[in-house]
Amino acid sequence: MTTRRFNSGEADLDLLYKELAERELQPLWELKGLLTKEPVVAAVPFQWRGTELRGLGERAGELVPVDRGGDRRVLACCNPGLDGAPYAVSTLWAAVQYLRGHEMAPAHRHTPAALRFITEGEGVFTVVDGDPLPMAKGDLVLTPSWTFHEHHNPGDKPMMWMDVLDLPVVAALDAVFFEEGPTEEADTSTAPASASERWFGGGPGLVPAGVGVSQRHSPLLAYRWADTDRALAAQLDVSGADSARLRYSDPVRGGDVMPTMRCEIERVKAGASTRPFRQTGGRVACVLHGTGRAQVGDRAYDIAPGDIIAIPSWSKWQLAADSELDVFSVSDAPVLDALGLFRTSEE
Amino acid sequence: MTTRRFNSGEADLDLLYKELAERELQPLWELKGLLTKEPVVAAVPFQWRGTELRGLGERAGELVPVDRGGDRRVLACCNPGLDGAPYAVSTLWAAVQYLRGHEMAPAHRHTPAALRFITEGEGVFTVVDGDPLPMAKGDLVLTPSWTFHEHHNPGDKPMMWMDVLDLPVVAALDAVFFEEGPTEEADTSTAPASASERWFGGGPGLVPAGVGVSQRHSPLLAYRWADTDRALAAQLDVSGADSARLRYSDPVRGGDVMPTMRCEIERVKAGASTRPFRQTGGRVACVLHGTGRAQVGDRAYDIAPGDIIAIPSWSKWQLAADSELDVFSVSDAPVLDALGLFRTSEE
Amino acid sequence: MTTRRFNSGEADLDLLYKELAERELQPLWELKGLLTKEPVVAAVPFQWRGTELRGLGERAGELVPVDRGGDRRVLACCNPGLDGAPYAVSTLWAAVQYLRGHEMAPAHRHTPAALRFITEGEGVFTVVDGDPLPMAKGDLVLTPSWTFHEHHNPGDKPMMWMDVLDLPVVAALDAVFFEEGPTEEADTSTAPASASERWFGGGPGLVPAGVGVSQRHSPLLAYRWADTDRALAAQLDVSGADSARLRYSDPVRGGDVMPTMRCEIERVKAGASTRPFRQTGGRVACVLHGTGRAQVGDRAYDIAPGDIIAIPSWSKWQLAADSELDVFSVSDAPVLDALGLFRTSEE
Amino acid sequence: MTTRRFNSGEADLDLLYKELAERELQPLWELKGLLTKEPVVAAVPFQWRGTELRGLGERAGELVPVDRGGDRRVLACCNPGLDGAPYAVSTLWAAVQYLRGHEMAPAHRHTPAALRFITEGEGVFTVVDGDPLPMAKGDLVLTPSWTFHEHHNPGDKPMMWMDVLDLPVVAALDAVFFEEGPTEEADTSTAPASASERWFGGGPGLVPAGVGVSQRHSPLLAYRWADTDRALAAQLDVSGADSARLRYSDPVRGGDVMPTMRCEIERVKAGASTRPFRQTGGRVACVLHGTGRAQVGDRAYDIAPGDIIAIPSWSKWQLAADSELDVFSVSDAPVLDALGLFRTSEE
Repeated sequence: MTTRRFNSGEADLDLLYKELAERELQPLWELKGLLTKEPVVAAVPFQWRGTELRGLGERAGELVPVDRGGDRRVLACCNPGLDGAPYAVSTLWAAVQYLRGHEMAPAHRHTPAALRFITEGEGVFTVVDGDPLPMAKGDLVLTPSWTFHEHHNPGDKPMMWMDVLDLPVVAALDAVFFEEGPTEEADTSTAPASASERWFGGGPGLVPAGVGVSQRHSPLLAYRWADTDRALAAQLDVSGADSARLRYSDPVRGGDVMPTMRCEIERVKAGASTRPFRQTGGRVACVLHGTGRAQVGDRAYDIAPGDIIAIPSWSKWQLAADSELDVFSVSDAPVLDALGLFRTSEE
Repeated sequence: MTTRRFNSGEADLDLLYKELAERELQPLWELKGLLTKEPVVAAVPFQWRGTELRGLGERAGELVPVDRGGDRRVLACCNPGLDGAPYAVSTLWAAVQYLRGHEMAPAHRHTPAALRFITEGEGVFTVVDGDPLPMAKGDLVLTPSWTFHEHHNPGDKPMMWMDVLDLPVVAALDAVFFEEGPTEEADTSTAPASASERWFGGGPGLVPAGVGVSQRHSPLLAYRWADTDRALAAQLDVSGADSARLRYSDPVRGGDVMPTMRCEIERVKAGASTRPFRQTGGRVACVLHGTGRAQVGDRAYDIAPGDIIAIPSWSKWQLAADSELDVFSVSDAPVLDALGLFRTSEE
Repeated sequence: MTTRRFNSGEADLDLLYKELAERELQPLWELKGLLTKEPVVAAVPFQWRGTELRGLGERAGELVPVDRGGDRRVLACCNPGLDGAPYAVSTLWAAVQYLRGHEMAPAHRHTPAALRFITEGEGVFTVVDGDPLPMAKGDLVLTPSWTFHEHHNPGDKPMMWMDVLDLPVVAALDAVFFEEGPTEEADTSTAPASASERWFGGGPGLVPAGVGVSQRHSPLLAYRWADTDRALAAQLDVSGADSARLRYSDPVRGGDVMPTMRCEIERVKAGASTRPFRQTGGRVACVLHGTGRAQVGDRAYDIAPGDIIAIPSWSKWQLAADSELDVFSVSDAPVLDALGLFRTSEE
Repeated sequence: MTTRRFNSGEADLDLLYKELAERELQPLWELKGLLTKEPVVAAVPFQWRGTELRGLGERAGELVPVDRGGDRRVLACCNPGLDGAPYAVSTLWAAVQYLRGHEMAPAHRHTPAALRFITEGEGVFTVVDGDPLPMAKGDLVLTPSWTFHEHHNPGDKPMMWMDVLDLPVVAALDAVFFEEGPTEEADTSTAPASASERWFGGGPGLVPAGVGVSQRHSPLLAYRWADTDRALAAQLDVSGADSARLRYSDPVRGGDVMPTMRCEIERVKAGASTRPFRQTGGRVACVLHGTGRAQVGDRAYDIAPGDIIAIPSWSKWQLAADSELDVFSVSDAPVLDALGLFRTSEE
C-alpha cells in the first residue's frame, strides 16, 4: 500500500484516516500545494556549457562504443530540480549526441518525437523513413513521432549536435511505443539534398500541388541555416528592431512543425536585449552564435555557442547580446495551446 | 546534486560518469526503460467500491467541517501504482465529494478543469460563473478551466458525487493557476434550470443564433440524465446492438466538452458484454446503474452503483452486465488526440 | 460572336474596339457598374402569400400528375428582379411542393442540397438514403448534397411544404450533377422516428461515441418542432428579451447543417419587433406562426402563416409581431463566410 | 412581370399557368435543364493569343489614357459562351493590364480579390496597403480582398501583365463593395523587396514568431520566379517525372493563398504531356515559357508565351510540350472545396 496515512491527533479522525489509506483514498483537506496561485515548478533554471558538453562528448566518443546501449551515444541534460529524472525541463528531453567518423546509429522509431539542432560541424546524415538528410551547422532536422530514423557519419570527422524530444510528455501520457528498424544496420545512403526538401522546401509558400495532408507533422524535415539566416536578416531589416524571432512551421498546413514542440530562433543585435517575458510550459534553448547573457527566472548566465539552457515554465526569459546572438529554442507551447493552457506575460 | 552517478567498474569510464553527474548529465546508454515497446504504465487497475465511498463520505461529513482545508470535503482516489500521488490514473484526478445539508463550498477557480458526475441524490447547486446548476442523479455538470465554481446545498439531505479533474496533466505541464472567488461566502442562488441550459440545451442541433465561440469548452454546462437515458435507449433501438455508447459533446463547436477530457456513457443490456478494447491514455469509470463485471487489464471486478474504476493506459477494458449497466467514464483522449498519440486496439 | 463592340466616335479607338470584340476582349474603361460602392442587387424584396400558395398547390394537385416532369409537383418562387430565373433570391431556390394522398415522388440525388420546412400538415415521409423521415408542421428536414431522397404520402390527406435549395450557387459554379434513384418506384418505408434521429438526435450535446465525421453535412436529418419550440421558449425565458433566434446546427461537428445553407428560426413576442439588420447574401423566410409585418429593404409586408419572403443581399430585414411570430429562414451565410465575404450591419 | 407564362394547350392548366405567372411562380415540371446528369457549362474552351494581347495592349496604351474610366487600362477576356459577360470562365475574370512608363493607376479596394501574373517585363510596383511590391516576369503578386492597391511604373518602359479576379463569384453572391483610395494620386514608393516578403518570405517553413492570423489570405503577397523556378526543378528532380506542379500557399496557415482562388504552376518537359484530368469549377491558364499544345475539352490549341486559356468546369485539361512549358493557372477550387462541390476525374 502506497497511499499515505495522515494523522490528526484526533482519535475519530485518525481512525477515518486509517480506513481511507487502507482503501487507497486521501482526504483533500490534508493535501497541500495541489492548487497554487501560480505554477510551482520543480525544474530550475540551468545552463550546460557548450565547451564542457563538447569535451565530455569527445571523451564519451573515445570510451564508449555507439552500440553500448540504446544504440546512441547521448548525454542527457538532467535538470537538478527534477529529482534525478533525465529531463532538461519537466516536459522536454535535451541532450547532446556524439558520432565519430564512420560510425552509425541504426534505425528505430518511437512515439516520442525528436529534433536535432546542429551547433557545429557537418557530415552526418540522418535518414528518416529512407530519406537521407544531411546535417550541418545551424540546421534543424526533424524526426517526427513514429518515423524510422538513424544517423550515419560517412566521413572521418566526429560530429555533435543537440537532440530534443517530447519524451516527458509522451511518458506522462503513458503513450510510449518503440520499434527497432527493419535492420540493425544503418542505411548509409547519402544525397546532397533530401527528398523531403526537394518536395517541400522549394521556396516560401510553394508546395506540391495535389498533395493531401494526413500526417500530423511537417513534411519538410530539414530547415537549412542559409534560409534561416536570410530570414532573420530580412526581419531585422523590415522591422527596424534590435531583435528578430522566427517560428519554424509546417509549409503545407501552417502551424508548428510537430504537435508537441514549437521551434523558434531569435537573433539579437550586439548590444541589444530582448524584452523579458514568460510563458506556461518549458523551453530549452541552445546558443548557435554570439555571446551575451541569458536571464532565466532570477538567474543570469553568461552564454556562448553550444550552451544549452533550461527555461522552466512561467520563468522570466530574456537575452542580452554582447556580440550578435543567434539562439534556437524548443518549447512545448503547442501542447499548452491545444489544451487551452497557454499563457504569456510580459514582465 | 540529484543527478545520478553511474558506475561501470571501468576506471576511465567511471571518471567520465563522475564528471557527467557533476555537470547534471547522464549517459543514455546506462538508462533503461526510457523507450519501451509498449507503454509501461505505473498506474494499476483498481476499484473503489461505492458502498465504501458512501460510508467514508458520511463519516467525513460527521467529523470534518467543509472548510477544514481547501474548502472542499473530498476523498481522493489514489491509484496504488502511483507511489502515493493522489491520482486515480496517471492523468486524471478522481474523488468523491460530500456536502451535508445547508453546507456550502465557496467559489474559486483554477486552470485544471473539473466535472461532476452524480450517482445518487439531488439538491445541490453548483454555481459556475454565477449560473446555478442543479445537480441530480445521472447528471454531468462541468466546471471548465478557469471558471469560478462553488457548491451549496440548500436542503436538509447530504449529497455525494464524483469529481474528475485533469489536474495531473495540468500539473505535469506546470500550468496550475488558482484564484479564490470574489468572496469566501458561497453564492446561494438557485433556479430550476441553469441559464447555460436555457441558452444551449434546447434540443439536439439547436443553438443560439449569432453566438461566436471564444471559449475552449462547451457552453452547455449540464447534461441531464433524462436526455442521456433517452439517447441511450434510442441508440440501442436503432442499432439493434446489445450496448450503446454516447459521447458528451460541445453543442456549438462539436467535439469534446473540454480540451482535456472526453466524457462517455455506456449502456450494456443485461446478459451482454462489450467488446474488449484498449486505448492510449487513462480512463476513470463510474457505475450509475446495474451490476456486472468490469475487466481491466488482467483484473476483473464485480461492479455495482457508485463504484469508481481506474483503467490505466493501454489496458484492456470490457464490461459485462448482470442487470442492465449504465457506466459513465472520463478519459484524456482529447489530449492524446491533439498530440497525435491516440491509439486504440480491439483485443 | 457575343462580345460587345463598343463605339466611342473616335475612329482610331473604334478600330481598336472592333478588333477587341473580334478577339473576345472588352475595354474595362467602357464597362460600367462592375465595382460598386455597395452591392447592386438585382433580386428585389418579394412576398409569396401562403393562402395563394396553398390554393395554387391544390389546383396543381388536381390538374398535374406528380410524374408529369421532374417527378416533383413543385411551384418555384421566381424573384421578379431576376429576369425570369426561377430563384427566390439570387443564391437560393425556394418553392412549395404539393403531394396528394397515396402519391409518391421517386428517388434521385443531386449535388444541389435541399431542405424542407413544413408549415402545415403531416403524414409525408421523406426517405433519405433509405431512412424514412416523417414530416410534420414546424419540422425541418434535410436532404443534403448527393443523398438519394424521395417523398411518399401513405395517408389520404394531401400535404404541402416549402423546399429550399442552393441550386443557384451550384449552378453558378457549374457543379450540378444528377442521378436517378436505383428505381423509379418510391420507397414506401415508414417509421415513427428516423434512424438519423435515433443515432444523432438524442439530446443536446449527446452524440454516438466513436463516430468519425467524413460527410460535409449534419448527420441529423430532421429537427423537430417540439424541440425547436421548447428551445425558443427557453431562450426567451433566459434572455428576458422580446425575441429569440436559433441556428440549426450539426450536432457532431458544430457549425451549420450544410456547407451552403444556414437555417435559423426567430420568435418575436406579440407587440415586439426585432432590430433591423442586413447581411451580405440572400435569405428566404417562411412564416410558421403568427401575424405581423416584415420590413425588407424599403418594402413592408403584412405577413401570415405560409408566407414566403425574399430578402435580397444587403437589404434591411426586420420583423414586427402582432401575434407571436415564428419565422424560419434560410440564408447562404456559410458560403459568404467561407469565402471571407460575410458582412453584417445593424441599421 | 418577368416570370414566364407557360402554355400547355389544356385550358384548365393554362389558367393555372397564367395565375402562377401573375404570382411570380413557375411550375417545375415545365422547367427543363435545371438538374443535369453532369454540369452543362455555358463557358467554352477559348484561347487569347499572347501576341495579339500584346499588340492590342500597346495600341490601347497609345490611344487610351489610364484614367479614362475605372483608373485601369485593362482588356477583359470575354468567354464567347457567356453571352457577353466580361468573364474568362463563369467564375473568373481574366484580363491584361497595360501601364506605360511613368504612368500610375491610383489606389482603390474592393471585395473581389485580384492577383497579377507577369509574363514579361519588369519595373512596375503594385502597392498593397502601403507596401510596394516590385513586379517582374514569372512573379505572382496578390492584391487580396479589400486591400488597397495601386500600380505605378517609375521607369520608361511599358509593362503588361495578366489580372485574375474572383469578381464573377463575388458578384453572383451580391457582395461587391468598392472604395476609392485615400487619394486619387498613386503612391510612388518603391523598394527592392516588399515588407511582406521580408516578413513572410524568408524561406520555406520560416515565419515570424508570435504572429497571429486574423486575415483570410496569405500575408505573403509576392511569389518570386527565382523561387518558383527552383522549386519546379527540385520537384522534377526528386519525382523523376516528366512534369511538376506546385501550388502557391499561405506560409502561415497553409492552404490556398486566398479563400476564392487556387494558384498553381506546372512545368512540362519538352516532348512530354500531362495526364488529362478535369475538375469542377473553372480555370484560367497563362503560358509563361515554352510552346506546345493545350487540350481543353474537345478543343486543342497551339500555345506560346503570353497566351491565356479558358478551361471551363468539368472540361478535360491537358498540356503537351514541344519545348519545356511553364504554365501558370488559377482556379476556383477553394470555393468548390469549401462548399463540398469539388470533384476531379482522370480521363
